[in-house]
Amino acid sequence: MAEFKTTFPVRYYETDQMAVVHHSNYIRYFEIARDEMMVQLGFPIERCEKELGIVVPIVSVECHFRHPARMGDVLTAVARVDRVPLAKMVIKQAVYNQDGVLCADGVVTLGFLDKKSFTPVRCPETVTDLFEKYMNAQ
Amino acid sequence: MAEFKTTFPVRYYETDQMAVVHHSNYIRYFEIARDEMMVQLGFPIERCEKELGIVVPIVSVECHFRHPARMGDVLTAVARVDRVPLAKMVIKQAVYNQDGVLCADGVVTLGFLDKKSFTPVRCPETVTDLFEKYMNAQ
Amino acid sequence: MAEFKTTFPVRYYETDQMAVVHHSNYIRYFEIARDEMMVQLGFPIERCEKELGIVVPIVSVECHFRHPARMGDVLTAVARVDRVPLAKMVIKQAVYNQDGVLCADGVVTLGFLDKKSFTPVRCPETVTDLFEKYMNAQ
Amino acid sequence: MAEFKTTFPVRYYETDQMAVVHHSNYIRYFEIARDEMMVQLGFPIERCEKELGIVVPIVSVECHFRHPARMGDVLTAVARVDRVPLAKMVIKQAVYNQDGVLCADGVVTLGFLDKKSFTPVRCPETVTDLFEKYMNAQ
Repeated sequence: MAEFKTTFPVRYYETDQMAVVHHSNYIRYFEIARDEMMVQLGFPIERCEKELGIVVPIVSVECHFRHPARMGDVLTAVARVDRVPLAKMVIKQAVYNQDGVLCADGVVTLGFLDKKSFTPVRCPETVTDLFEKYMNAQ
Repeated sequence: MAEFKTTFPVRYYETDQMAVVHHSNYIRYFEIARDEMMVQLGFPIERCEKELGIVVPIVSVECHFRHPARMGDVLTAVARVDRVPLAKMVIKQAVYNQDGVLCADGVVTLGFLDKKSFTPVRCPETVTDLFEKYMNAQ
Repeated sequence: MAEFKTTFPVRYYETDQMAVVHHSNYIRYFEIARDEMMVQLGFPIERCEKELGIVVPIVSVECHFRHPARMGDVLTAVARVDRVPLAKMVIKQAVYNQDGVLCADGVVTLGFLDKKSFTPVRCPETVTDLFEKYMNAQ
Repeated sequence: MAEFKTTFPVRYYETDQMAVVHHSNYIRYFEIARDEMMVQLGFPIERCEKELGIVVPIVSVECHFRHPARMGDVLTAVARVDRVPLAKMVIKQAVYNQDGVLCADGVVTLGFLDKKSFTPVRCPETVTDLFEKYMNAQ
């Protein structure tokens, strides 16, 4: 199991006229946690695209909204990977506020595509290796 | 059954560096279809908030990404309601491109809250009536 | 002079907790009008990128916010070009609501870059020709 | 003079199909710096709205785009106030990347409105006092 966290404040432009964070932004918070995961693994997403020639599009998103985040809140977004990715990568995601209250959680599934042809490929070894090493080091 | 559609072009700011529409925007396209649904029913969402004193937050979102939308595409977003909403409203959603290709589909569940207390209420009769009339007229 | 207009409703996700359209979205509305301009000229922006190998980044933006747009408003975004573009393209922009009230106006200046090298180039003839023909036909 | 800085990475959803940060996001980065300014002054914007009953809408924005920010960049957004705000607040803004390269700069002018009537008011003393103290302490 590999778990990654990153913390950031709610932005004013993320609020809507209900005076809470617009629900679509949690999908973006989930992405922030995944990008930070790759940074912490030492191989950020833009290097996957440039050096490995793959893109990592979203296959599906599921998100449950539990508690509204508001301006002034400082959020922690979490990405958890339970198994080394093969053809797909399944990521458990959550967003907590500064009091540890769960604001949203869900599951995001990603695929791997050749950057030029947009055809499916397996998760590159460079990436599976990073997850394996990280999980073994836990 | 009540089904509502609305059509709009992809916006440049919705694309990302994969040169496709960023996945979070489909969640927003789903919302566009729901807002248009309320307009077509004759009672737009801002009137729900103002005149009925309720807000309609998202409880959960599920979205499957089927085919990338790109700049130049003209999309049709669909919202379908199979049953008159009670405590919750379940909406089947889809986005098609100009060739009828399914780009994304999913299910969105909404709740009803008192605007001031943010406590759950039932779907207001004004709204259930609109759905009933619409479904009976089909 | 060449003037282009496009009309669209305010989206819920564009509102903020002041219950008005967040100011950053007018910059996006300006872009919608410019993209629609290229569509109406018969040569959409994605064809500029693909067929001419140029990108058209923003050099500067100036925007004055005159009247808040709100959920329920139907906006018309305007792009006006007074002179055929050369090294740069200067566009006068405005956003009106359904009552003809000016919500925002400003000026956007764009440059032309080679898509690969990101170095400045002149406005391609394909594009200057379109503007010339359009202006002469007025 | 009072200057405030905050640092954050570029987000994937902020990129567009030119593979750079979409220009509208710099307007949002400017806002991030202003919100952080109020946090550092000890009186965040949401407290202005709640406790003082004022909102602080944007009157105008001017932004010059100097150098494209890209995925992987870590940006620093700056807000500088040269004079204690009265009827309006003028803020000099800039965004730098991790190498100190200026990506964008500009000026944002804000007004103060009564939250309910949306009519202009002067900058509340609570806020002018914070700026005066901060500037005197420099």
